[in-house]
Amino acid sequence: MSETRFKLFSDPVHGFISVPKNLILDLVQTPEVQRLRRIRQMGVAHLVFPGAEHTRFVHALGAMALMQDALKNLNEKGTEISSHEYTAALAAALLHDIGHGAFSHTLEHELVRDFEHEDMSRLLLGDLNERFDGALDLAIEMFDDTYERPFFHELVASQLDMDRLDYLRRDSFYTGVAEGEVGVQRIIKTMRVHPLDGGSDSHIAIEGKGIYAVENFLLSRRLMYWQVYLHKTVLAGDQLLRAILKRVRWHAERNQHLDTLERGSDALLYFLRRDVHADDLRDPAVRQRYCDIDDTDILFSLKQWMRADDPVLADLSRRFINRDFFRVTFLPSHPNAPQIESWRERVADWLIANDISDANSAERDARLYITIDRSGHTAYESSREMITIIDREGRTHELTERTDSPALSSLSGSVVKPYVCYPKPVDLPLDAVTDPI
Amino acid sequence: MSETRFKLFSDPVHGFISVPKNLILDLVQTPEVQRLRRIRQMGVAHLVFPGAEHTRFVHALGAMALMQDALKNLNEKGTEISSHEYTAALAAALLHDIGHGAFSHTLEHELVRDFEHEDMSRLLLGDLNERFDGALDLAIEMFDDTYERPFFHELVASQLDMDRLDYLRRDSFYTGVAEGEVGVQRIIKTMRVHPLDGGSDSHIAIEGKGIYAVENFLLSRRLMYWQVYLHKTVLAGDQLLRAILKRVRWHAERNQHLDTLERGSDALLYFLRRDVHADDLRDPAVRQRYCDIDDTDILFSLKQWMRADDPVLADLSRRFINRDFFRVTFLPSHPNAPQIESWRERVADWLIANDISDANSAERDARLYITIDRSGHTAYESSREMITIIDREGRTHELTERTDSPALSSLSGSVVKPYVCYPKPVDLPLDAVTDPI
Amino acid sequence: MSETRFKLFSDPVHGFISVPKNLILDLVQTPEVQRLRRIRQMGVAHLVFPGAEHTRFVHALGAMALMQDALKNLNEKGTEISSHEYTAALAAALLHDIGHGAFSHTLEHELVRDFEHEDMSRLLLGDLNERFDGALDLAIEMFDDTYERPFFHELVASQLDMDRLDYLRRDSFYTGVAEGEVGVQRIIKTMRVHPLDGGSDSHIAIEGKGIYAVENFLLSRRLMYWQVYLHKTVLAGDQLLRAILKRVRWHAERNQHLDTLERGSDALLYFLRRDVHADDLRDPAVRQRYCDIDDTDILFSLKQWMRADDPVLADLSRRFINRDFFRVTFLPSHPNAPQIESWRERVADWLIANDISDANSAERDARLYITIDRSGHTAYESSREMITIIDREGRTHELTERTDSPALSSLSGSVVKPYVCYPKPVDLPLDAVTDPI
Amino acid sequence: MSETRFKLFSDPVHGFISVPKNLILDLVQTPEVQRLRRIRQMGVAHLVFPGAEHTRFVHALGAMALMQDALKNLNEKGTEISSHEYTAALAAALLHDIGHGAFSHTLEHELVRDFEHEDMSRLLLGDLNERFDGALDLAIEMFDDTYERPFFHELVASQLDMDRLDYLRRDSFYTGVAEGEVGVQRIIKTMRVHPLDGGSDSHIAIEGKGIYAVENFLLSRRLMYWQVYLHKTVLAGDQLLRAILKRVRWHAERNQHLDTLERGSDALLYFLRRDVHADDLRDPAVRQRYCDIDDTDILFSLKQWMRADDPVLADLSRRFINRDFFRVTFLPSHPNAPQIESWRERVADWLIANDISDANSAERDARLYITIDRSGHTAYESSREMITIIDREGRTHELTERTDSPALSSLSGSVVKPYVCYPKPVDLPLDAVTDPI
Repeated sequence: MSETRFKLFSDPVHGFISVPKNLILDLVQTPEVQRLRRIRQMGVAHLVFPGAEHTRFVHALGAMALMQDALKNLNEKGTEISSHEYTAALAAALLHDIGHGAFSHTLEHELVRDFEHEDMSRLLLGDLNERFDGALDLAIEMFDDTYERPFFHELVASQLDMDRLDYLRRDSFYTGVAEGEVGVQRIIKTMRVHPLDGGSDSHIAIEGKGIYAVENFLLSRRLMYWQVYLHKTVLAGDQLLRAILKRVRWHAERNQHLDTLERGSDALLYFLRRDVHADDLRDPAVRQRYCDIDDTDILFSLKQWMRADDPVLADLSRRFINRDFFRVTFLPSHPNAPQIESWRERVADWLIANDISDANSAERDARLYITIDRSGHTAYESSREMITIIDREGRTHELTERTDSPALSSLSGSVVKPYVCYPKPVDLPLDAVTDPI
Repeated sequence: MSETRFKLFSDPVHGFISVPKNLILDLVQTPEVQRLRRIRQMGVAHLVFPGAEHTRFVHALGAMALMQDALKNLNEKGTEISSHEYTAALAAALLHDIGHGAFSHTLEHELVRDFEHEDMSRLLLGDLNERFDGALDLAIEMFDDTYERPFFHELVASQLDMDRLDYLRRDSFYTGVAEGEVGVQRIIKTMRVHPLDGGSDSHIAIEGKGIYAVENFLLSRRLMYWQVYLHKTVLAGDQLLRAILKRVRWHAERNQHLDTLERGSDALLYFLRRDVHADDLRDPAVRQRYCDIDDTDILFSLKQWMRADDPVLADLSRRFINRDFFRVTFLPSHPNAPQIESWRERVADWLIANDISDANSAERDARLYITIDRSGHTAYESSREMITIIDREGRTHELTERTDSPALSSLSGSVVKPYVCYPKPVDLPLDAVTDPI
Repeated sequence: MSETRFKLFSDPVHGFISVPKNLILDLVQTPEVQRLRRIRQMGVAHLVFPGAEHTRFVHALGAMALMQDALKNLNEKGTEISSHEYTAALAAALLHDIGHGAFSHTLEHELVRDFEHEDMSRLLLGDLNERFDGALDLAIEMFDDTYERPFFHELVASQLDMDRLDYLRRDSFYTGVAEGEVGVQRIIKTMRVHPLDGGSDSHIAIEGKGIYAVENFLLSRRLMYWQVYLHKTVLAGDQLLRAILKRVRWHAERNQHLDTLERGSDALLYFLRRDVHADDLRDPAVRQRYCDIDDTDILFSLKQWMRADDPVLADLSRRFINRDFFRVTFLPSHPNAPQIESWRERVADWLIANDISDANSAERDARLYITIDRSGHTAYESSREMITIIDREGRTHELTERTDSPALSSLSGSVVKPYVCYPKPVDLPLDAVTDPI
Repeated sequence: MSETRFKLFSDPVHGFISVPKNLILDLVQTPEVQRLRRIRQMGVAHLVFPGAEHTRFVHALGAMALMQDALKNLNEKGTEISSHEYTAALAAALLHDIGHGAFSHTLEHELVRDFEHEDMSRLLLGDLNERFDGALDLAIEMFDDTYERPFFHELVASQLDMDRLDYLRRDSFYTGVAEGEVGVQRIIKTMRVHPLDGGSDSHIAIEGKGIYAVENFLLSRRLMYWQVYLHKTVLAGDQLLRAILKRVRWHAERNQHLDTLERGSDALLYFLRRDVHADDLRDPAVRQRYCDIDDTDILFSLKQWMRADDPVLADLSRRFINRDFFRVTFLPSHPNAPQIESWRERVADWLIANDISDANSAERDARLYITIDRSGHTAYESSREMITIIDREGRTHELTERTDSPALSSLSGSVVKPYVCYPKPVDLPLDAVTDPI
């Protein structure tokens, strides 16, 4: 009797997701992929958008589901895809983010110097490939862009890859921010494989009728960055988390408060006690420890550290757990050193007045309570990873050449905004940008 | 016992719409408003987007529903609104489009010279006001912008009025074009009344946190224009309809084929037999005839004219009814006279070869089978009707000053595209713009 | 260069619908299918649910799109489907409703005695097949249930056919009535072909995990009937339309008011002047006239008849156009003859008092102003067209055997409600059912 | 300058949620409410429906938002509501679930004997009221149903309270299970306050036109129970969690493996070391410990216990973290003792064969690896908390009297299904119900 060949997952974004009962389902059931269930997709943004608790796990499933749609569409347009390639591409989409760490990109860098999650994903792909006796060889080639049909790599990692199509649609859905709404199916249905210079060297191109959907995608992405990913309160949450980890690292290096620190997560502490470099992750034991950390470890540790003897660590941890964040204010330009110094003094005074620091420690502690940083984003860089439009005559063009949209051609410039993050009660004499949000 | 005070309409876009059982419900039940049930909101666009058959009636209800939301929001923010003003503003939103004619703007101009639907709406508002013994006095002041609190007019007619907020959201919903998705509630919730120069001269302003929603609104509107309202097949449908009416007018002026013509709608024919000018609509009898025309008249007449003895009228009518439209091709620039002449000759030859015209008539008939026109759109003209942003300190700014978006500031330029519309089988030697869609 | 093989239609319900550029697109472009653009899916219900103006055309596309999904799903589960079968099944889904007449089922019966739209669809399928040189042979076999693989017929016409799946989902979408929300994709994804008694005699069965989706479908259908399709105001609209046609027929039979009547649609009048029986539709000329009628004809004719000399016809027509319907009240049981007689007298008095009828005609006219009828619906008749559930062991069961739902097993009983429809101002001494809505 | 009076939360389900900047926002910012951010709304169901990671926090906001809608609707229908009552009702809706513990109801009972989350909510309401100097007095009266206007209590706790309206809508949204789709706004818009026996003793009643929406709500709830809340894999996850806690408690009582146990959460261990009774929660210190536990504690502890020396605890914990659950099979009836004994022996053998237990411990350990339980649900018990329908004449009826729906009247019976939960590889000789899903 024909058994069902798919396991169905009910997904609010894409409806039913069919996971083939072969290598793909086996991969879904690995601890590496299940771990993504414990890492939120949007870092600390769920503390601003309370409906957005979705995880990297459901995003990985979503990217795989879109890969299915994309491959079926390309196949219907005449591009042959072998079943081996099909499975490999699904695996690559499923696993593309497997190296992500708990919470945000920010946090990854706080734990491991020079961390790139793509490198970590690549290492874990290798681990899985070994365990699955080479079944991921082709998926890895696609990931590495060493496979002879480069369009597969483009579906996994490019301006219009399945990752971006899923996360933009999904994050918009879960945050309720309509401005990120994207016609994912329209983009996928207008994709085709375009053989450049004949031959097998074929690339993804968008048919002309998809141009507005792509344009909307890029503009929406930009809006999502400013409205969600780089929302001031999200930045404040990120800064707070970094401050906490810096404080713990500082104590750990000095063997202070070890009792308290050790009430938190072992795996987390491992990285805060050492100066781990991205290269160290090549050691399987270190890699394992890295994978042991998920959002749970961070939150659990913070809940313990709320009761630390160190008033700074206790205060910072309590602030995160109870969502009592600092204020973020955008600045017209990066402040100069004396300015920063004078602000820090005010914060130090405030710390003393509030019995968080004493006169000795206030200046040092203030560095955790006020930070100057910059947020920035480039929506579309045609120079780096161009999007190709193909017209009715089969000629290809770079996106910005083909559109009448001055809006679009203007996206390429990157925007960077300096900001300062500090406790709300402190009155800083800021020449603030009266920023929109 | 308290009777229900609202009649509820179930609307797929806004959910339940509550129509107060007072003047507003009485207005909804007038023939003038019920007539809007027989005029599609999107002209011929439903022939391209088959789900978009929605009418001006449901749009009028929607605009009124958004007016309720907007007024409640402003009231919660401290702007006093009397119940008289409330009802008047609802009436103005409900009736803002009451003067619209069947099918498209294009068609209106084919029937009445110098037609402006706002003027016609204003005349009908006057008729209704008379019938309702002056109950619409205040609504008319708001419509005319003579009321002392100008923000009411802005809610009825401005860049961010309830009309635009509803139609963009609604047209996106019914066409399935996600690129037009707009955060209507976000825009409304960030509106406030800003007293300019103190005093009662108060205007609508958008709080800073709504800036991205507004930006998205303007960008979406632009995308909807190019992708939907000015879609090539929509343009082709419009041109076909105009050609048919021109043909009928030509016959009517010469008293030709009267038997056939009179099988169509009387009310329609009234306008095609005369040179009616917008000023003539001041005559109530002419106005009534204008209101007698709705989409039904056009479609019914075309179905009759399919069987005309005149092969041109029969062919054009059949083409519209069976959706066998001409082709539209965008041009790099407006063609010169000799070019047009040579194209027309080709079309004339094709008409003869297809037994639609004979050698005598072909040249003249060709003018109906090939048209050169231009489509265009300006997304945001800050100079004309500026959108005001209000920052946390209460200072106001024009939208483009306040945003970092180069995309937005680029919207103000208007884009115009010349095009030619002609029968698909004719092979024109075009220097075509290989347009995206 | 590979041309696109599909024409994409943007549909708000299913997203993009891909129409293959073969027989299917050719069929879409026939006048027979284009005619469905001018017939609303929900009869007069758009006068109650103002967002629901969608047509039988978009529904036909939707049913075809779901057929694609269903066949792909069955194929993935191991059921071989040839490309010939695939195209035939798509054609059958697209054309299943092609015989529907303007407005409602009610209206069809007013024009043609013993009309069954399935028979009319079958005749038109024959016409199209002739024109397409037998290309629809297999589609017709599927439609007729003479094809050797009966599951194809079940996808076209059964309790869970693509027609019902699309219309329930679509009508719920456009009316905004969430109670009709149905998990269409869930039902389709749990379908499989089950070989009964081995052999090729294979049928559609639902896997156990789809049982709740099917149950919800049946319950939702029931709710849609009571809340939408048999809504009192919809019934009132239907009755009004019937009364108008009866009146016209009455005049036509007596050659009265011919001038007025002929201002309406010829095609419509053809049927009102004759006693046409369903069998007469076998004559191609009669069939053509039937197809000439669409919603446009009805509405246009009513607009003309509003100005009839006959005050009854004028009043009834005006009522429909301006949506001034009669009242519908449900009754505990069918009233007896004396009761009806006494009600009719009251209505007759009212007609006289309102100068619609004179003493001679009032009694006769009253029969158009008050009607007694019954509305009814059976949600699921397991005896007639059973739904088959297949368990994990491959055994099949009839739906109601397999569910714990007493709700479901209770659906099979049919519910019938008598009602009276009469002018609102008339005070009838009714023993009314204080019906819920 | 008028400051904004609301903090807006973007919610994918209800759009913008406006939190008044008064007591309500202060409550939102308490640690008690923030804690709900760390407790998933659906217990372990997110392990089956991967999109459903939403928390009790966003649900609490949603219930409060619906309370706003309900009160505004009642007020528009003539029920006076003072601003004091308004705020109190919002507070009651916001805090109704504040006593919920981590993960599922199941878990609560594993930690505290005779636990009722309503009692815990009540205790925490008292704590907050003390902290806010009695500002919650009225909210508590509404919660306790001691307030003189009982309809407020009904909006907080009844068959159609804001809690249920939000969670059904929300859970359906996040799981993607369309069968739970509910017309929440329709229900709210048809609510009114009905004075029973005149006087102030007024209750919530539903207008007749809302009857189908209520019926759909009850049927949807039933479907959500069987399809989601009592999904077999959800039951399996619950049983696994209980087994782990039982194991830990067993060790803790014997002072075994304390080193391992203490690597987990202190707060959790507190309850596993003691026999805490619901009455003990009256002690503020115990209550605080209870509140210290959230989903984080459970997951973090399990991750530690995966590395326990005890192979049973390690295996069970690993199974939960990696989502390697037991199988659940429904049974026709509760098995008898010898049957259970024989099954347990098979499981014991399997434990020995897999080196999880030795001959001494296998029988005892097996009790954690195989459990017999029953799942059940009653959709609507008219006897207990009836839903009142009010007809056009103002007479009230109990719901099941007023509907023609046999489906509905059948809902009152409760359905109970016995099941066995055991390791997949063990071959039990089951007389299984071939259950649908």
